[in-house]
Amino acid sequence: MPTRVSGRTPDQLRPVSIQRQFTRHAEGSVLVSFGDTRVLCTASVEERGPAWKKEGGWVTAEYGMLPRATHTRGRREAAQGKQSGRTQEIQRLIGRSLRACVNLEALGNYTITLDCDVLQADGGTRTAAITGAYVALADAVNAMLKKGQIKKNPLFGQVAAVSVGISGGQPVLDLDYAEDSGCECDMNVVMNEAGQFIEVQGTAEGHAFRREELDALLDLATAGILQLIELQREALKA
Amino acid sequence: MPTRVSGRTPDQLRPVSIQRQFTRHAEGSVLVSFGDTRVLCTASVEERGPAWKKEGGWVTAEYGMLPRATHTRGRREAAQGKQSGRTQEIQRLIGRSLRACVNLEALGNYTITLDCDVLQADGGTRTAAITGAYVALADAVNAMLKKGQIKKNPLFGQVAAVSVGISGGQPVLDLDYAEDSGCECDMNVVMNEAGQFIEVQGTAEGHAFRREELDALLDLATAGILQLIELQREALKA
Amino acid sequence: MPTRVSGRTPDQLRPVSIQRQFTRHAEGSVLVSFGDTRVLCTASVEERGPAWKKEGGWVTAEYGMLPRATHTRGRREAAQGKQSGRTQEIQRLIGRSLRACVNLEALGNYTITLDCDVLQADGGTRTAAITGAYVALADAVNAMLKKGQIKKNPLFGQVAAVSVGISGGQPVLDLDYAEDSGCECDMNVVMNEAGQFIEVQGTAEGHAFRREELDALLDLATAGILQLIELQREALKA
Amino acid sequence: MPTRVSGRTPDQLRPVSIQRQFTRHAEGSVLVSFGDTRVLCTASVEERGPAWKKEGGWVTAEYGMLPRATHTRGRREAAQGKQSGRTQEIQRLIGRSLRACVNLEALGNYTITLDCDVLQADGGTRTAAITGAYVALADAVNAMLKKGQIKKNPLFGQVAAVSVGISGGQPVLDLDYAEDSGCECDMNVVMNEAGQFIEVQGTAEGHAFRREELDALLDLATAGILQLIELQREALKA
Amino acid sequence: MPTRVSGRTPDQLRPVSIQRQFTRHAEGSVLVSFGDTRVLCTASVEERGPAWKKEGGWVTAEYGMLPRATHTRGRREAAQGKQSGRTQEIQRLIGRSLRACVNLEALGNYTITLDCDVLQADGGTRTAAITGAYVALADAVNAMLKKGQIKKNPLFGQVAAVSVGISGGQPVLDLDYAEDSGCECDMNVVMNEAGQFIEVQGTAEGHAFRREELDALLDLATAGILQLIELQREALKA
Amino acid sequence: MPTRVSGRTPDQLRPVSIQRQFTRHAEGSVLVSFGDTRVLCTASVEERGPAWKKEGGWVTAEYGMLPRATHTRGRREAAQGKQSGRTQEIQRLIGRSLRACVNLEALGNYTITLDCDVLQADGGTRTAAITGAYVALADAVNAMLKKGQIKKNPLFGQVAAVSVGISGGQPVLDLDYAEDSGCECDMNVVMNEAGQFIEVQGTAEGHAFRREELDALLDLATAGILQLIELQREALKA
Repeated sequence: MPTRVSGRTPDQLRPVSIQRQFTRHAEGSVLVSFGDTRVLCTASVEERGPAWKKEGGWVTAEYGMLPRATHTRGRREAAQGKQSGRTQEIQRLIGRSLRACVNLEALGNYTITLDCDVLQADGGTRTAAITGAYVALADAVNAMLKKGQIKKNPLFGQVAAVSVGISGGQPVLDLDYAEDSGCECDMNVVMNEAGQFIEVQGTAEGHAFRREELDALLDLATAGILQLIELQREALKA
Repeated sequence: MPTRVSGRTPDQLRPVSIQRQFTRHAEGSVLVSFGDTRVLCTASVEERGPAWKKEGGWVTAEYGMLPRATHTRGRREAAQGKQSGRTQEIQRLIGRSLRACVNLEALGNYTITLDCDVLQADGGTRTAAITGAYVALADAVNAMLKKGQIKKNPLFGQVAAVSVGISGGQPVLDLDYAEDSGCECDMNVVMNEAGQFIEVQGTAEGHAFRREELDALLDLATAGILQLIELQREALKA
Repeated sequence: MPTRVSGRTPDQLRPVSIQRQFTRHAEGSVLVSFGDTRVLCTASVEERGPAWKKEGGWVTAEYGMLPRATHTRGRREAAQGKQSGRTQEIQRLIGRSLRACVNLEALGNYTITLDCDVLQADGGTRTAAITGAYVALADAVNAMLKKGQIKKNPLFGQVAAVSVGISGGQPVLDLDYAEDSGCECDMNVVMNEAGQFIEVQGTAEGHAFRREELDALLDLATAGILQLIELQREALKA
Repeated sequence: MPTRVSGRTPDQLRPVSIQRQFTRHAEGSVLVSFGDTRVLCTASVEERGPAWKKEGGWVTAEYGMLPRATHTRGRREAAQGKQSGRTQEIQRLIGRSLRACVNLEALGNYTITLDCDVLQADGGTRTAAITGAYVALADAVNAMLKKGQIKKNPLFGQVAAVSVGISGGQPVLDLDYAEDSGCECDMNVVMNEAGQFIEVQGTAEGHAFRREELDALLDLATAGILQLIELQREALKA
Repeated sequence: MPTRVSGRTPDQLRPVSIQRQFTRHAEGSVLVSFGDTRVLCTASVEERGPAWKKEGGWVTAEYGMLPRATHTRGRREAAQGKQSGRTQEIQRLIGRSLRACVNLEALGNYTITLDCDVLQADGGTRTAAITGAYVALADAVNAMLKKGQIKKNPLFGQVAAVSVGISGGQPVLDLDYAEDSGCECDMNVVMNEAGQFIEVQGTAEGHAFRREELDALLDLATAGILQLIELQREALKA
Repeated sequence: MPTRVSGRTPDQLRPVSIQRQFTRHAEGSVLVSFGDTRVLCTASVEERGPAWKKEGGWVTAEYGMLPRATHTRGRREAAQGKQSGRTQEIQRLIGRSLRACVNLEALGNYTITLDCDVLQADGGTRTAAITGAYVALADAVNAMLKKGQIKKNPLFGQVAAVSVGISGGQPVLDLDYAEDSGCECDMNVVMNEAGQFIEVQGTAEGHAFRREELDALLDLATAGILQLIELQREALKA
């Protein structure tokens, strides 16, 4: 099996770290790293349901990238006066993914907002964000239980995510920026702890991909996500 | 095999029509219908490349929905002062999908914009838009060849799209609005004429989906898209 | 009497068609054509009065043009982030004109929005929009009466509109795009079925116009509008 | 002939004053008053043609109202983040009206911007603005001639404007705010020094107006504007 | 003591005039001039408290500059679609400064908005605005007392402001535009009638300033403001 | 001398740390902490001068606060569509302050942007940002010298900042959030390594402050800043 520029095997994740309580004010605050990709995920609890829903709570996400998280400075979205299409797409994905493990009715009249801000980018920021945001969400829910804001845990199962792609003709797991820019096709996969799919988003970059390529990518993603699920569990125990 | 509310079998498309030259000014102008979903797709040729690229042309898309294309009136995005995250996500998907069958270098210094405006919505507007926009694009490219703006055809292959989902526990093809709102998971698939994948976007709505469900949905989509590819061919011959 | 490039006599309208129920969801939906100008006019009924008014309903309009309704593609206003001054001027005109035949008190706590979207433009889009929107409004009001939302018909009289101008030195009715671009002065006239004026908007383009020119234009407009009033009546009977 | 609340006869203008050089920096600066309506009109000369035109200059206008120019405070448009439809309609009207007396080719590569800011409003702000802006424009053009920026005077003729309407059943000239709010129909007329029409904008407020009413209003406007033309001449001589 | 280009001594204010009731509609309307700097300050009383405060009233300010108040035309902020950072900074300063002399609880459920619009600029517009706005505020409060909207005067003390700076190496009072553009450091000072500080904002332009320079500037400002306080008093007696 | 809630003496800074190379991509990247206030300051070098300046480079700053840097979640400015007045005021202050120690001509055709993003807020974010941004700027300039982009060091001197205020009746240095919210007056001071003033911004919150209070605050600030200057030096040596 040929190795990658980074020396990783095709099915190898980058070193992952999940640091809880990175900042003080948020009910959940996690700095997640997938190699050089570092995302600060905070979970904020507010006592209000969404405007368009009479009962039950809500879980939503916002995503941002610090202007110099990347190789060359990007323009600040607040100064631009709007969030890019890419930003909106990512934050909608994060929110949808996390809601897949929450019983919103059991959340009562609360909204939890997951802010995922990329401090440093090296590929896979959205999948790192989902993986870290789950831990921040779990911390926030535990804080709510402790304060008596809710009676029973609204979380069922876990959610984690990883990217996969075909790079140099071979399917690989957890692409870094160099692999991502050069890859022929790119897929983000979100799963739960039972290995079931929550989101699958695959895009052909260089050439359209065949069904057997798709199958290989899904296998890689499944194995990678089950490792991430385990790392989340350990982090939450610590 | 249980039938659907609409009387269709699980693997049956809605009646599809592809009407070329619906309006006069555009280089390509197609009214595509998937059942009651009707989208006007125009292709406009402009002599300018994209600002961020020194050589070669570009293909891009914009998407809109007339305020009363839907059951209840939606707010006009132009009056709101911005396009929603959903709109941006869809138009990025359409543009990316169509570019997958275009040799941009062979397009010279031209930009082709595909405007997909939904006149009436009944589910599957983005997949109908991609399917119709391909035909408008082909007409525009033929007009360019005829005028001598380009020497060789920059299109290779065809692109079409369809939605699939699990509704009432069974995998079904080409969901209408009623099926789409109630479905447990929903996937949009874009393929080329060789049955290869260009985009796969699946989202769990009610519950996470198992690998075998995913496989069944991909099978349905593949069969449906190959029919749409054939319908595009016939429309272009007419 | 010299004829026009189009072969029409100076006092001749273009072929006019008024197609009701063009789309399904709206309470009124009319595709109106004045020659090659085609505007989709929908009337949407919502149960809310305007914020700034304690009692009675409201009738308002929004106007848009699909990017490639015109010879060269115009930028999409939703993508630009704002409606142009021209768009706002036109939609204010349409709303004001239609309100001139509505007893707003009799409309109860309802707002009717007339969306006029130009699918294809060849001059006179605002006057075609007013003429078509009246028919959509009449259909919506009839639907409300049938559902028992209102007791008595809030419409009194009819409203239609046409453009007139001086082209090649001679006053002509219902200018198409070629005549409109080259004309020396241009006037939009809105009248009711009694031949009384609701709006008169005349602009000198090439040279200021004399009182007798103004008089000739008003005569042409009056005759033209009375024909349109008749065509509306026939369409509503069909 | 019944008199008006203000004591004026139906064909009587309010006291008009035209004060030149009201501020120091602008090439033309005029404070115009029609009774209690006071508008500061400045003309600014900039050495640049419009972006969309290869040759010749341009004359354009912007309009604003100080928040407390009116009885109750209006919101500041700069704080709102956009100009209202009304503001845009008015500034387009002012620009178009003034251009009707300018030979743009003779203006060379210059743009003259007429800023019309209402310090105090009592009806007829747009017509006062046009009347005052003409004088500011004439001053700016004279300054350009003196500096040698242009060789020949690009102005031909004069432009002035007034409102007319039907109030209490009778046609009256130059409506103040009280008359304007209560009037049945309202018309703004712009003419040149030869009594020819540049713009006619009439709107039925209470009821549609008959042709003979329209004729009476146009007669009143013509007589009023010829007086304003004379007042402009005197102001420019002073 | 060397004199300034303007002939003023270093500690000399420009001629100051405070003209009350400059416009009719506002509860307070003051045209303040500091030499060629002329600012129209209106105070508008509205019966509503601020949204974020349960009890007591509010005093706030907005600032604007007419496009041609300056040597070269500036772009109109309403047309730009936003207020510049400079504008926001100034209006926040004016509001904060005026609130320093108001007992907001005694203001009941009223909001007073101070609109400060610069008709002509020659340096020191923000300090002239604060000085004039105080007088407009006092007039508005008196009108409220007279109407019985409030029982006791919510104003305590007076507020005025002036700029100071180091120009040509010497500390000077009340800089005009020429001095301001060329100055090495620039300070805006707001004080009350007891000579106490409400705001001090000093900025080094050319070089950092020493403590003794700062002290000299504060002395100049104090003496200048006490004169302005006296001029406000006289204006309010008139 | 009474102590503060935090146990600090009135003239005592919070523990300060300056961590260089916190992220990888930026030419300078500093995480600065003043107690619990943590700001990430990056310096980005781009090869372009400012649009409005023919020669020489530019130094500018942008400021942001992560939504949950604070006790309760603030709205994300990118989602709001604009930067608040407070944000703009702060980033203008940071940019101006840093430019006070840069010879812009010696910077050639480069722009350095200082992005200051608050990860956690506990009072004094703008002064911490200035202090940290100086170190990031020094690192970026050194990188430019090493790469040969510039020949001589454009920095002269150092810049640091601190807040001071009157809290519980006594002048104190470096206020934390609790002191800041309750303080009677609040001043931000920016100085260079020679103890000269670059910016002084004082605001009375509860009551106007006397000259001797101002003097005491300036003394405290001077002593505090000289300590910060020393800490910057040590960090840059490390």
